[in-house]
Amino acid sequence: MKAPIDPYFSPFLNPTALAERYVQLAPSLHRTPVLHSASLDTWGGAELHFKCENFQKSGAFKMRGVTNALRELAVQGLPEGGVCTHSSGNHGQALAWASAALGIPCTVVMPSNAPQFKKDAVRTAGGRIVECTPTLAARIEAVAEVVAATGAVEIHPSNQAPVILGQGSAAWELLEDCASRGIALDWVGVPVGGGGLLAGTGFAVARWNELHGTSVRVFAGEPTGADDAARSLASGKIEHNSNPQTVCDGMRTELGDVNFPVIQSTVAAIHTVEDSEILTAQRLIADRLKIIVETNCAPPLAAVVKHPEAFAGQRVGIVLSGGNLDLSAHEWAH
Amino acid sequence: MKAPIDPYFSPFLNPTALAERYVQLAPSLHRTPVLHSASLDTWGGAELHFKCENFQKSGAFKMRGVTNALRELAVQGLPEGGVCTHSSGNHGQALAWASAALGIPCTVVMPSNAPQFKKDAVRTAGGRIVECTPTLAARIEAVAEVVAATGAVEIHPSNQAPVILGQGSAAWELLEDCASRGIALDWVGVPVGGGGLLAGTGFAVARWNELHGTSVRVFAGEPTGADDAARSLASGKIEHNSNPQTVCDGMRTELGDVNFPVIQSTVAAIHTVEDSEILTAQRLIADRLKIIVETNCAPPLAAVVKHPEAFAGQRVGIVLSGGNLDLSAHEWAH
Repeated sequence: MKAPIDPYFSPFLNPTALAERYVQLAPSLHRTPVLHSASLDTWGGAELHFKCENFQKSGAFKMRGVTNALRELAVQGLPEGGVCTHSSGNHGQALAWASAALGIPCTVVMPSNAPQFKKDAVRTAGGRIVECTPTLAARIEAVAEVVAATGAVEIHPSNQAPVILGQGSAAWELLEDCASRGIALDWVGVPVGGGGLLAGTGFAVARWNELHGTSVRVFAGEPTGADDAARSLASGKIEHNSNPQTVCDGMRTELGDVNFPVIQSTVAAIHTVEDSEILTAQRLIADRLKIIVETNCAPPLAAVVKHPEAFAGQRVGIVLSGGNLDLSAHEWAH
Repeated sequence: MKAPIDPYFSPFLNPTALAERYVQLAPSLHRTPVLHSASLDTWGGAELHFKCENFQKSGAFKMRGVTNALRELAVQGLPEGGVCTHSSGNHGQALAWASAALGIPCTVVMPSNAPQFKKDAVRTAGGRIVECTPTLAARIEAVAEVVAATGAVEIHPSNQAPVILGQGSAAWELLEDCASRGIALDWVGVPVGGGGLLAGTGFAVARWNELHGTSVRVFAGEPTGADDAARSLASGKIEHNSNPQTVCDGMRTELGDVNFPVIQSTVAAIHTVEDSEILTAQRLIADRLKIIVETNCAPPLAAVVKHPEAFAGQRVGIVLSGGNLDLSAHEWAH
């Protein structure tokens, strides 16, 4: 038996209400381009349209969820203590950016061994860093202390309904931009880590289908070394990773109780792919589209190539999740 | 005393004729986007608008000149023996792409020690490779042999008038796209190697100014290790590089007798920049715009930063020339 979806989503089951919300978020976001490459189509065996969230403000789709979450907070008056999170990656950067734009403080709890470029990115965006020992328990405790001391509100990267709803706007724009060029997508594919982007995409695509009478399906690509989402969808309950191992640093997390019911009711398939397949797909995206994408972007394309029985000849939209790499570590330049 | 410009350019001194020609070329080209980054503006001390020719077909602006050159050939009937060149870089790739699209053969003379990824790129585009010993004399001789044996027409990368005219379409589109958003550029900047892009840009911007009553100026960035163009503009005659040393592999070439007179009459400044300044600028373009650009793209931005007396607070359009890197050599991926 499936759990009901969070009541926050109820008014947005009306597709017009969802479309209106996405219009309201737009001024705070970049309308990222949708790119296409004939040689990638040939390689992938499908017609591929890439939504470039690596060009999004703060360098990742995370800005979308954060923007909607802060909008909900603002309805009751933005918290003087600001916001906090213990995500040290793209979500932390996005939250710091969006908070600075609104003039409220943002605290990001980061493990003491976090890479310097991630610390720099949070500070450049205007965030305050609180360091903790590098365990999940220490992170959660540190966030609780920040909340108690400052009155900050925690914004979770993937398991809060407003965050999830916001992430769905990438797929919505992708569908709009393709439709405006006469392209009716068969599939929308995203990576799945914590599940926020996948649930938001599933929710948004379901509304799109209702509004337009289409039957676009949603799939995810997931590394085999952190395949909790694929196993969860198969078993019908949230499964865990004992020791996740993958080159996709943003995908070692697990689904949550808010996003999982949405995923169950809206996602057609989660395909697992090997790290080697992910790295090949990432290289091809970079080489053919000439854009910088994180490893985390590549699982959906790897899944398309791996599963011609599902995707051959289909029109597939893929959300490229982000482009925040530590370029200083790499002499790829010449 | 300056030499007269090539008679090919005469009808295009009429700005309307030039604009019409660029409209005619458009179906064979990508309309590449113009990107902007607030943090790059802060770093550069100017308002910067980047024309992304790394997204152009074949991965570089070279497609523009080749497209116009093949259009001129087609007027008399395309040569059965096809076309040839001894440029093993972006021009060779572009010529191979464009020839394949028209169904004529393309031969690219390459030194035997050319990198494998460049050979692969030419072959993937449908070009035939003729290897020669790695000297300029051997290249020229090999091209002459191809021409004699096949009747192919040589298309030079930077010193033929139709090629030069085609390259100017990038700046024209940049000016159009900025104007449509209410942005009146003060400068357009490009890199200078062989001089085709710089001459084409100078010619096009002069026509734009006549058509719109504006006074946009053109500058180039050039590596100090291959500064023949800066010295040529200063001395009034074509100067040479004895032993060019720069990380910009596409800029070790020299100006030619067709492009130099155009450069003399249309270019306001050529600024030289150190390799270290070029690499810093390249890293920042990649990091902030999330795009893959060659080292060759970076000299104009490096020049803007180096010369605040010329550019501080100005509106500067920069043509990013290409994005063809050997990504296989670099583990920048994760």
